[in-house]
Amino acid sequence: MNKEDLSLFRDMAVRAFEQEVTPFFEEWEEAEIAPRELWRTLGAAGLLCPDMPEQYGGAGTSPDVTVVIAEELARMGYGGIATGYNVHCGVVTAYVHNLGTEEQKQYWLPKMVSGEAMGAIAMTEPGAGSDVQKIRTQAVKKDRGWILNGSKTFISNGCHADLAVVAAVTDPGKGAKGISLFLVDASLPGFERGKKIAKMGIHSSDTAELFFSDVHLPEEALLGELNRGFMSLMSELPRERMTCAAQALGAAEGALEVTVNYVKEREAFGKPLSKLQNTRFKLADAKAQVVLHRTLYEKQLAAFAEGKLSADDAALLKLSTTEMSCRVIDDCLQMFGGYGYTAEYAISRFYRDVRIGRIWGGTSEIMRELVARSLLDS
Amino acid sequence: MNKEDLSLFRDMAVRAFEQEVTPFFEEWEEAEIAPRELWRTLGAAGLLCPDMPEQYGGAGTSPDVTVVIAEELARMGYGGIATGYNVHCGVVTAYVHNLGTEEQKQYWLPKMVSGEAMGAIAMTEPGAGSDVQKIRTQAVKKDRGWILNGSKTFISNGCHADLAVVAAVTDPGKGAKGISLFLVDASLPGFERGKKIAKMGIHSSDTAELFFSDVHLPEEALLGELNRGFMSLMSELPRERMTCAAQALGAAEGALEVTVNYVKEREAFGKPLSKLQNTRFKLADAKAQVVLHRTLYEKQLAAFAEGKLSADDAALLKLSTTEMSCRVIDDCLQMFGGYGYTAEYAISRFYRDVRIGRIWGGTSEIMRELVARSLLDS
Amino acid sequence: MNKEDLSLFRDMAVRAFEQEVTPFFEEWEEAEIAPRELWRTLGAAGLLCPDMPEQYGGAGTSPDVTVVIAEELARMGYGGIATGYNVHCGVVTAYVHNLGTEEQKQYWLPKMVSGEAMGAIAMTEPGAGSDVQKIRTQAVKKDRGWILNGSKTFISNGCHADLAVVAAVTDPGKGAKGISLFLVDASLPGFERGKKIAKMGIHSSDTAELFFSDVHLPEEALLGELNRGFMSLMSELPRERMTCAAQALGAAEGALEVTVNYVKEREAFGKPLSKLQNTRFKLADAKAQVVLHRTLYEKQLAAFAEGKLSADDAALLKLSTTEMSCRVIDDCLQMFGGYGYTAEYAISRFYRDVRIGRIWGGTSEIMRELVARSLLDS
Amino acid sequence: MNKEDLSLFRDMAVRAFEQEVTPFFEEWEEAEIAPRELWRTLGAAGLLCPDMPEQYGGAGTSPDVTVVIAEELARMGYGGIATGYNVHCGVVTAYVHNLGTEEQKQYWLPKMVSGEAMGAIAMTEPGAGSDVQKIRTQAVKKDRGWILNGSKTFISNGCHADLAVVAAVTDPGKGAKGISLFLVDASLPGFERGKKIAKMGIHSSDTAELFFSDVHLPEEALLGELNRGFMSLMSELPRERMTCAAQALGAAEGALEVTVNYVKEREAFGKPLSKLQNTRFKLADAKAQVVLHRTLYEKQLAAFAEGKLSADDAALLKLSTTEMSCRVIDDCLQMFGGYGYTAEYAISRFYRDVRIGRIWGGTSEIMRELVARSLLDS
Repeated sequence: MNKEDLSLFRDMAVRAFEQEVTPFFEEWEEAEIAPRELWRTLGAAGLLCPDMPEQYGGAGTSPDVTVVIAEELARMGYGGIATGYNVHCGVVTAYVHNLGTEEQKQYWLPKMVSGEAMGAIAMTEPGAGSDVQKIRTQAVKKDRGWILNGSKTFISNGCHADLAVVAAVTDPGKGAKGISLFLVDASLPGFERGKKIAKMGIHSSDTAELFFSDVHLPEEALLGELNRGFMSLMSELPRERMTCAAQALGAAEGALEVTVNYVKEREAFGKPLSKLQNTRFKLADAKAQVVLHRTLYEKQLAAFAEGKLSADDAALLKLSTTEMSCRVIDDCLQMFGGYGYTAEYAISRFYRDVRIGRIWGGTSEIMRELVARSLLDS
Repeated sequence: MNKEDLSLFRDMAVRAFEQEVTPFFEEWEEAEIAPRELWRTLGAAGLLCPDMPEQYGGAGTSPDVTVVIAEELARMGYGGIATGYNVHCGVVTAYVHNLGTEEQKQYWLPKMVSGEAMGAIAMTEPGAGSDVQKIRTQAVKKDRGWILNGSKTFISNGCHADLAVVAAVTDPGKGAKGISLFLVDASLPGFERGKKIAKMGIHSSDTAELFFSDVHLPEEALLGELNRGFMSLMSELPRERMTCAAQALGAAEGALEVTVNYVKEREAFGKPLSKLQNTRFKLADAKAQVVLHRTLYEKQLAAFAEGKLSADDAALLKLSTTEMSCRVIDDCLQMFGGYGYTAEYAISRFYRDVRIGRIWGGTSEIMRELVARSLLDS
Repeated sequence: MNKEDLSLFRDMAVRAFEQEVTPFFEEWEEAEIAPRELWRTLGAAGLLCPDMPEQYGGAGTSPDVTVVIAEELARMGYGGIATGYNVHCGVVTAYVHNLGTEEQKQYWLPKMVSGEAMGAIAMTEPGAGSDVQKIRTQAVKKDRGWILNGSKTFISNGCHADLAVVAAVTDPGKGAKGISLFLVDASLPGFERGKKIAKMGIHSSDTAELFFSDVHLPEEALLGELNRGFMSLMSELPRERMTCAAQALGAAEGALEVTVNYVKEREAFGKPLSKLQNTRFKLADAKAQVVLHRTLYEKQLAAFAEGKLSADDAALLKLSTTEMSCRVIDDCLQMFGGYGYTAEYAISRFYRDVRIGRIWGGTSEIMRELVARSLLDS
Repeated sequence: MNKEDLSLFRDMAVRAFEQEVTPFFEEWEEAEIAPRELWRTLGAAGLLCPDMPEQYGGAGTSPDVTVVIAEELARMGYGGIATGYNVHCGVVTAYVHNLGTEEQKQYWLPKMVSGEAMGAIAMTEPGAGSDVQKIRTQAVKKDRGWILNGSKTFISNGCHADLAVVAAVTDPGKGAKGISLFLVDASLPGFERGKKIAKMGIHSSDTAELFFSDVHLPEEALLGELNRGFMSLMSELPRERMTCAAQALGAAEGALEVTVNYVKEREAFGKPLSKLQNTRFKLADAKAQVVLHRTLYEKQLAAFAEGKLSADDAALLKLSTTEMSCRVIDDCLQMFGGYGYTAEYAISRFYRDVRIGRIWGGTSEIMRELVARSLLDS
């Protein structure tokens, strides 16, 4: 989408969030979950999955729109909401759309666009981390379907999800080549949610364990080709990394903005903090970092919109943006003194929220390995 | 105290905390306050203010004992308890002992040693930060006493405190030379506590605003000389900075220990994390940092025990130790991957708890100015 | 210029440098000066000031061409030559062209394009640093001209310069508003060069002090308007900062390239260095930094080519690029072990050369202040 | 040695260096070698190997004395001389003394104490780096002696050395267990020196390759036990690392001192640089770093003097001190602006000199691995 149109979408989204999120956000953070209704409201406002084709209820925009919406949520300090949004619109919907059969799409996509069905992605298992080889959840062929057993952890939207994209072993002993993806309807018997996992930040994003006990999946639950689940996961990596970068960059920019306002107003020893050389130098460095990353982000976002963003370029962007956001926000928080440590000030939420960026969607260490591979192993 | 005896005290304290704190700690963190009874229990165990003379119920040890007890609490991951302990034993009791009249000491110290009276230090005001010139709380001489009006914020132990050492203006217009300290009994009419302030970390430490509305203080509430409050505050700075350093160092060491254990057990891609070069190098740097700071800390702790620690040397130690603890613990947390972000793992608490270290007891920026002054302005 | 044409220019330049510089470069570094003839050779090859209009002998390209030529020199490890080139083509020629009268242009520009006249810019004075207020060199009006007295230091191309653009006081006591620029012909009586200043790096760039003793300047030596020298200097800042960024970025990319090659070939303990995780992670970070800065650089280079680069944006780019280059090259050098410390390996020259980037053309501290101003003082 | 006596030795050494080094130092740096006579002069002044027993001409001091003498040289900015000193007094002499037979000691030690014989240590080979397994230099038993063939590189004191301690393979195929050490008299036929290796810094330290072509060693050239050379090397590691730390710390402190003086005198925009907050904060951090490292250094130096410094503790100190010195001196140099980049100012020499610290005596990467091993592999 061109910059002007994107900008209109941003504005529209911000106005909607100011109305639908801002008044209640503190409460949701406290509760460590946003209400299920929020997503229907956002769906009704046309903010969920606008990149889905019109035939499925979407607006048929380019996919960068969902990325910038998450970016705006993060900039507003709503990292938890951005998280749920990204998982639903940026990841799960894309899986269904890109890998699904026409029937699967017709069944699920309209529900996802309207917010009737919330999505979650269920990859990580206790003890397995990012290592696909270690997936233990298993789907065994039976009659005209599959029996699913196992468990998953760190599942964002886990409490609310109506649909979980689950990675399971379908050909044991084949490692990555024996993994398939399934569209698992959460209303099926045997699908259970563990209790909410308490986290350091992104509180309004619910995170849960999921348990599958002899869940009987119909044949058409298989998403994409049998035993090609790992390849399917790979193909969605650029999008996933892009959304992580969006959240990190949005948060860094939002945090810098509230900090700039604060240091201009707040006085210490008779003059505004903004007149102290240390404040000026630290924020100048922060500004430079933000500008550098925004520039690369916009370049890659344009490539993403055209389907041309490589997984390696996305890894570099994800690595750099998430690391930057933690550094910049740490410096910003320090400007607030004691207030920065209180929950009352947005800066402390920014600080807690962004720390996950260096961990999820592949840790910084994995991203470094990917960048190194493209640099050194040719 | 010599190292062997200190070590015995450490062990005793740790055993007591394992019994009195460990089983309940999660609950207190959740509640964002430790129970009032805890302090009586610790008093009964001889762990409160052991450095007070025997005539006031103490054990007459050197003052480094209370510092290392706070260090142990921090190492165990109980930063919130360490905070309350430090304020009570490391700061308030010392004010009473060092500045108080014999009557004041006889009245308060035994209660503080037993845990019957909890102490708080009430210096910071909304909008004033570290700037003593901006204190607005005022004590006006009246008859045989003083009328206290004003408010204070960020008061650790604010919810439980029975005794608050309050800095108030007694000679308006004289700036730092018109400030006095008062021992304010929290049971006096007009003494009110605001609601608990929610913080990013050290959750089991309660923090509150205090309000004084025409609190009628008796004449003997004045602590130290009239209008010499600022000098009194100055004289206690080495102790305060030492306790900050103790908490930061204890936390860094405790965090490194749990991380070392984790990376030795946890496997990724077929071998323990501890065998990955990145893990090794990052933790080697962390170890080096911890050793460097421990060495300086022990040197200064010995000086402190002999009453020879200068405020400047304490500032350098506080600055360096608190900055280090944040860097080291950030690197440690990263080793835990997604688990590091969950509240379940101690490392995420270490991470949130230590961030205050660079802010309280004088921000790192103030510490840098102090170090610079001794380096450049002679 | 579009990217393809720029790329052709780059290739042409690289081929010329491989022929005219590479075989002799070590020798020039040793001598701490490049031969005067080099510049005539480059002029004959069409590489000097290609952005000058054809009527003055140039090729009439956009100004970004000279920037990328300097970038290529820096990438090849010829920071000293890049320096001389930047001063001559990137700075002095631009002054003459943008501020000069038609006569001045007709007289000097063809000589500068051909390499017959080398240029230097003479701003800094001993003890004055970047502070224009402290300029002491004075031009006193006399008859039909000016008498110039004073001295300048840190003058790149100082030994070879035929033309020096000199900033001098023309209205004493008016500070920045009493400064004018002069085109000073180095063959005039009273123009003397001090001995070469030995530097840490960029050895093949000669640096000298210049002394003016009653140099009689003709009336037409005045460049731009009287007493508007400071404003003239200001107007050329984007260009100057752009050239600094080009040198820093070129060097960082060149250094990374030689390092990547080295770690792929060099073995330690039985496998290539490139297989060690530390090597991989450090170089991944270096790569990410280089990509980030290249992206911003190209965006700003395009703006510069269209005359739309602001001084503030150029300051941010200069700050960030020069700081990055030192960090990245330090990490690269470390990969070389003992070889990295020897003069024989290019990496040690990269290391020494780039350190000036954070100092010249306005130190990083000045750049930070400029970035802070645009962020905080509105 | 106690601190007072050490301090006397320091003062004596400094006075001698002011007389014997200061007036000529620039010249030696230019020549990239100190004169052979210097070492005889220092010997005559009692400054070489004072820790050797009196029976060999020494003063019988504890070994920390030579460490602090090197520290003082580094602090004075004479990193090149410190290097030669360390190799001769800190390393080679210790090898002879600790491993030699009585005959070997009687023959070599008096010459080394007087400066008649200069020592070098010849371990590293082209392409072998720190990997003992890759040593190719070979000593083959023949009649009543050995035939030595091979080459060594990066040999400090290589041009002047009269005695080289050479590591050679004596039992091929046994790896580290087939290495022996030899005392090689440089006057033997077949001992040749390559040309001086040009380096980035420590210019007054000569560095050379050494070549051995059928050098016929007498039987008594063997130092220590046959095939136990690797173990002998290991046993001297604490000492070697200590000397590296001494040079790094001395340089950091010396650089900080000249910088503090500079910023107090130098004005910018109307006030001393020392009054700018950025200057103050940067130098406060530098001061804190220096104090931290000095404290650990003194603790380990005392352990070393008593023969109780472990190789691991020495590795941690070496790692941390050398890394710190580069960071601190980089920040210091920046304060000098353009002057910092000129050879004229000592700070640029400090900057170039200390960079080797992170490389020699085992790179920082090797030190990290050693620290990690003691932390993680138990």
